[in-house]
Formats: sequence, C-alpha cells, structure tokens
Amino acid sequence: MTEGAEAVRVTRGFCEFVVAARARPLPETVKQATARAFCNWLGCALGAARDESVLAVLKVADGLGGNPQASVVGRRERLDVVNAALVNGVAANALDYDDMHVPTLIHPTGAVVAAALALAEQRKASGAALLRAIAAGIEIECRLGRALFPAHYDAGWHSTATLGTLGATAAAACLLDLDAGRVAHAFGIGATQASGLRAMLPNACKSFNLGHAAANGVRAVLLAEAGLASATDVFETNYGLLHVYGRPRDPGALLADLGTRYAVTEVSLKPYPCGVVIHPLIDAALDLARSHAIDPGRIRAVQAAVHPRAIQLAGRRHPEDAITGRFSLHHAAALALTRRSAGLAAFDEADVHAPELTALRERIEVTADPGLSPSAAKLVVELADGSRHECIIHSPSGSPEKPFTDAQLQDKFVELARRVVTDERAHALYALCAGLDSLGDVSELRRHWIDREEAG
Amino acid sequence: MTEGAEAVRVTRGFCEFVVAARARPLPETVKQATARAFCNWLGCALGAARDESVLAVLKVADGLGGNPQASVVGRRERLDVVNAALVNGVAANALDYDDMHVPTLIHPTGAVVAAALALAEQRKASGAALLRAIAAGIEIECRLGRALFPAHYDAGWHSTATLGTLGATAAAACLLDLDAGRVAHAFGIGATQASGLRAMLPNACKSFNLGHAAANGVRAVLLAEAGLASATDVFETNYGLLHVYGRPRDPGALLADLGTRYAVTEVSLKPYPCGVVIHPLIDAALDLARSHAIDPGRIRAVQAAVHPRAIQLAGRRHPEDAITGRFSLHHAAALALTRRSAGLAAFDEADVHAPELTALRERIEVTADPGLSPSAAKLVVELADGSRHECIIHSPSGSPEKPFTDAQLQDKFVELARRVVTDERAHALYALCAGLDSLGDVSELRRHWIDREEAG
Repeated sequence: MTEGAEAVRVTRGFCEFVVAARARPLPETVKQATARAFCNWLGCALGAARDESVLAVLKVADGLGGNPQASVVGRRERLDVVNAALVNGVAANALDYDDMHVPTLIHPTGAVVAAALALAEQRKASGAALLRAIAAGIEIECRLGRALFPAHYDAGWHSTATLGTLGATAAAACLLDLDAGRVAHAFGIGATQASGLRAMLPNACKSFNLGHAAANGVRAVLLAEAGLASATDVFETNYGLLHVYGRPRDPGALLADLGTRYAVTEVSLKPYPCGVVIHPLIDAALDLARSHAIDPGRIRAVQAAVHPRAIQLAGRRHPEDAITGRFSLHHAAALALTRRSAGLAAFDEADVHAPELTALRERIEVTADPGLSPSAAKLVVELADGSRHECIIHSPSGSPEKPFTDAQLQDKFVELARRVVTDERAHALYALCAGLDSLGDVSELRRHWIDREEAG
Repeated sequence: MTEGAEAVRVTRGFCEFVVAARARPLPETVKQATARAFCNWLGCALGAARDESVLAVLKVADGLGGNPQASVVGRRERLDVVNAALVNGVAANALDYDDMHVPTLIHPTGAVVAAALALAEQRKASGAALLRAIAAGIEIECRLGRALFPAHYDAGWHSTATLGTLGATAAAACLLDLDAGRVAHAFGIGATQASGLRAMLPNACKSFNLGHAAANGVRAVLLAEAGLASATDVFETNYGLLHVYGRPRDPGALLADLGTRYAVTEVSLKPYPCGVVIHPLIDAALDLARSHAIDPGRIRAVQAAVHPRAIQLAGRRHPEDAITGRFSLHHAAALALTRRSAGLAAFDEADVHAPELTALRERIEVTADPGLSPSAAKLVVELADGSRHECIIHSPSGSPEKPFTDAQLQDKFVELARRVVTDERAHALYALCAGLDSLGDVSELRRHWIDREEAG
C-alpha cells in the first residue's frame, strides 16, 4: 500500500492534465524545445531506417499485415498504428543518438513521439496538436521518472520503456477525444503493459523496449476508446503502478506545477551517438586532443574519473560489437583521443576492433568518483615525454547548460537524414519539422522522406 | 545480482527443454491432462465469444486489420497471429471459469494455449504438436511460478500474465523451428515484455492481461525468428527476469526433473465460474444447503473460515458488478446457500443486486484462519430454530485431489459451447478436442465452432 500516493489522486490529476493539454497553448520556449526534440527524434529515426534491428521488427510487422494507417519513418511502408509505433520507436533509439533527460536517465521522446506520430498521422492531426501531445507525454513520463529515480532504475527497469509506456499513453490520449474518465482507463491499460528490462541494454532489444512501449501506449488508448474497462486509479491504487514499480517519497510532486513547468525544456540532445553518461568524458578527450594536438601514438597513460553510474553502465574496456561499443567509456575515450571526433562515422562496429583503439584502451584507466556529478568527467593524459594534460568537464555539450545551437541540430539532422534522402530533401524536411507548429496535417511529413517518384 | 540463479544456467536449460519437447512424446497421463486442460480452455473461450471485453479487444484488432492467419474462438473473424492470441487470451479468462494451478495462483492454460493455438493454426501443426507445445509452455510458467511464489504475487504482479508471457513464449517456440540459440533470444524478447498488474483483478483488464501475455509470447518468437537479438541468458543475468521479478531461493529447482515431471497434472479445473480461492467455501455451502435442505429465509447467521489469501483476494461483502461478484466470498456463499447451485447461470450481474442475496450477505461473517490450507474452508450455518450445521472441505471439487470426471468436463464444455453453437455441434467439438492428439491439422477445429453455412 502506497500511503502517500493514495492520499494524492495522481490518476485524476494526470487525466485532467491530458484533457486540458489538447487546447492549452504551449509557452513559446516549451514549444520550441518540443519542436527541437521532435527534429532530433525524427533525424535519429531516419538515420536508422535501414538498421538491422528495424528491419527485423519491420519484417514481422509486414508478415502480420495490417491496414496502412501510419508511416515507417524514412521508408515507403505503411503499417497499422500499433505496428508503426513499434517500428518507429525501435528506429528512434537504434543508433543511441536520441535525446536524454539526464535527471531520470529516460530517453524522453523515444516512445512518446513514436506513439503520437502514428496516431497523429492516422487522424490527420495538425503539427500544433502533435507538439502539444508530445510535450504532455514527455511531462507524464519524466514526472514519473523523477518520482521513482533512482530506485526504479536501480531495481533493473529500463525506465525509458516502463515509464515511456505511460508517456506514450498520455501523448496518444492527447490526440484522441477521450474524456477524463476514459483517459483514466487508458492509463490503467497502459500501466498494466509497462515493461522493459535493463538486461536488454547491451543488445538490440534495448530499442525494441522503446518500440514496445510506444505500441502499448497506442493500444491502450485504442482499447479505452473501444470501451475496455480498467482500473481508474492505476497510479495510486493498491497493486497499481506506484505500488509495484516504485514508491515515490513525495507523491505530491507528481502533480505540482503540472501544466506550468515542462520537463521538455530539460532535455539533452546528443552530439555523440553513444550512452549519455560517456559524453562528458568525450568532451574532455576531444578538448585535450584538439587543443594540444595530441599524437595518439605517444600516449603513455590515460586516467579518467567519472560518476559511479557511468562505470556501472559503460565500464567496459573492450566492447564486442557496435552496441557495446556505444556503451564503453574506454572505447569512447580512445576514439575521441585518436580520431579527434566522435560523431556518427566513428562508432561503427569496425572501430570496435581497430588495433590502434584496442591498444589505446589498454592504457586507459577509468575510476568512479562519487564526488563528481553525473554530468561531469575528469581526464588526465600522460604523454611519452612525461608531459601531462588535464581537463575537467562540468556539463557536456548538448545538455541544457550547454545546449545545441539550432545550426548544430540542423547539421545532426541532415547528416542522419542523408542516409535515406538527398541533401536538398534533408534540409527541406528539417525546415518543415522545425516549423511543425504551423503544419496543418502531420501526414504530409511522409512525402518528404520517401523517394521522389513515390511522393508525387 | 542473483548469485544462486547465475550459478544455474536456467536459460540454457529451458531452451534445451523447448527444443527437445518438439519431438519427445508426452507420457500418457500428461497427454490426457493436457487434452483436458485444452478442452477446458476452449470451452471457456467459446462461452465468452460474445463477452463485452472480448468485443472491445476484437473491435480494436478489426480496426488495425492484419492478415487472416488465425481464428477467434467461437467467431467467424480471423486475425493476424498476434491479435488472435490477444483476443483468445482475453476470451479464455473473461468468465473466470478457466483453470488454475493452485500452488502458484497461475491460470496455466490462459496465455499459453492462446499463443500456441494461433501459431499452430497458422503453421497447420498437428494436434499432437499443439499438445506438446501446451505442456511445455505450462511447464515453464509453472516452474517460474513455483520459484517466485508468493513473493512475486505479493509484490503486486498478476503472475498469470507476467510469467504467462514466458509460458506463451515457450509454447510458441515449441511450434517453430528455432534452434536453442534462437529460443534463448525469444525468451529474452518475451521476458522484457512481461507485465500485468494485480490492480486489474477486479476489472475487465484482468483478462486483457492474459491476452497481452499471449500476444507478447507470439511476438517474441516471431521477432526471434526474424533475427532480432536479445539477451541470451535473460533468466539468470543481471537485471534479467529472476533479478527484477523475484529471486528464487532455490534456482536449481527450476531445472530439476525437467522433461520428466509435468505441472499440467497438477491443474485444477473449475466447477464454478469465480475465483478459485472461493471454491472450497462453495463446496461447503452446497453440501450443507443440499444435505439439510436449508431454507435460506431461515438462516440466522453464517460463519465461514478460509485461508488468509482468500480474504485478501475475495473478502468483499457487497460486490458491485459481475466481475467483483466472482471475487466475493460472501456473495458466493449466499448464492450457493440460496440457489443450491453455483454454475454459469448463477453468477450474472443481476444476481449481485438480488435483494435476497444482498440481505443474506449481511448475515455472513468470513474470517481468516492461517491454520487452514488454501484449498480448505470451514462453514457453520445457524438457523432460526437454533440448529447449527457445519461442514469442512479439505480439497475443492475440480482439484487434483477431487478431479473432474471426463463426463463433468464434457458437461461444462457443452454448457459453454452451446452459447455459440448447437448442442450437437458442441458435443462433436468436445469429442474432437478430447482426441486432439490424433488431429492432423489444428486449423480444422475452426470449422466446428462457426455457423454451419460458413463451415462448408
């Protein structure tokens, strides 16, 4: 029994928020942050449109059939809304280049946008409605994340998936006409599907977790719309979400300033396609390598200090494949020191096995420093001539403290989108997404990411 | 970290069991128990083919479309295998008349048969292959259930759904040609989808939990077949199933006698469509009402004693609707004492509000007796003339200790099946299911539950 949570009528508060969010204009900064997060999500999904994990999930969806209700990002296929949400959720995360809400270690747009985009396309919603749904979905998942972090994550839950299911449900519910009572049923159906194990983090099923969360959110609102009854107080009730998945110390915080303060403004956009806990170390390594023109062949030893959670998630000296390479502090530091870049081109599977990187990784020691914040890293590089270079990073590039400029975001988007469309088309699509607020019908987006002859 | 579980290679053991189960003949008693469990499952699903919850889930599945790969039990519709598993899983549980593995409080056939039947139909498997898959699926879920009970259930998980997902995965994997390595991926994909909250037990989403588990099991094997990678040691690994959902005291028991001892022989088939924890009390009430020809109007007071868990699950004096009526010790005792029956006809929503039952429920006191086994109940009825009648039940009807005869099972099946087909057809279908082992192609079953003109 969650005494505190029961006293706060969390479900009712969330339902009223979702219903009100359909008509409430987003504050300008929130609208912009949401549009940027959408651009980043779409770029990541476009870049992964031909990824192996996406192809596997798509193959199954194709086999099942389904009405062509919503698009697969970057592809010609159209699927039913549940399977479209599934495939796009997988794609958004497949490159580990998607956004991050650092206080909760949740990828906030992952499942939320996948669910919202599929339904928005099917129901021909406007860009403004889509932005409001995304902001609302991110709000619900990040509030749950804040309430349950770190216990929920430490217990082994991939909270991007578990809590993303509720964010996806909220976003999807925002795009339909359900009254608050029906939204409560949707949250009930969503919560009872919440799942995702951290055991998936070093394999391709990590991204499946996000897709599954998105699909479950869509299914939850469709079932609520069709009249399926569920618990109407699923967050606070006995054996409900806050009882089973974690018990917040301050349940009142779940509803405080709801509709006024928005978590989407706290989102980090990644400059490097790898685990966000590695980013401060990459910043430090790039800074030293560039400012001292370090010759990687003359590095004698490297000492790095990071937050203990970074070690827990990415304390892996020798990764085995592309995915584990994106969750290796040693590999990322070696990459950044050697290549002086850590972008999309640097994190291929081949790099994981490159002899010069393998050798350098042997000379890198990474230690946990509980005194460092999760956003910080310390790096010391000793060269063969005995000289030492040191760098401390307090907030990584892309974080709210050191945000991407719009130009950086556009560059990232275009680099990813160019994997499936021409340069020109990539720029046009970015402009359309950056101005999503004024797009009349979201289903128009699709015309911009498929082959010209198809777009007609 | 689950030290014990890590030492035991649970995943490998389960995978080898599934692969071997495809060719290993079931012992005769196991085969018969599985066929009986299948008949009971199918009867329950047929009886619920027009239930409100089934219609809601079916409506959503219809809207999504999907290739006609597998049947909806008792209906003309055919859906893709994932949605067919979903709808049939809901139907099997909707009347609360499905089977129960009392030591784990798992409805063992629920998700397992729904998943296996959908795939068996699509792949035109034989009845014998379907029986082997069902026995294997029940084995995996009940072994997990035994290892994790009661902590997993007490934590708020609807284990029929969470662990049913793994049972459904095992059964589905049994019907495909995946090697042990691929089955491991399937278990990984299955485990990361495991979900289901006990908060759903008093509402229609309870049955959705089973359908969702079945659908997730089917999706897991299809994705593994399509090449999606997952954790290959999901049961014992860090942040895997036995780390996150419960830590068994004796992980070795998960593999002991696997392939020799079968949980399906321990299954209870319900004579009454309500929570199994109520059954001993109903037996006692029917016994007293019938043998003493008790006039319900002359009952002064009723004292019942049951296992504490029965109170926890069904200690509800005045239910509000049909579902909560099936989880009310007071209502069930009142029904049995008044009507001298507690079959399908007795548990309607109207009965919940019948004045004579409401009045009698006020005179029934139910107390928890930790000295009683979960299968036991004590009942004392005091009449207006001061006489007292007492009955103690140690094992309820339908339990392995007091099993249904084949004739009783057939009666139950026919009563349920007659809701959608003629009496003659119901008997023919029962005969076909009871002899499932010799059916060449499972997809033939469908011809027997749809209108004659369709069957052609």
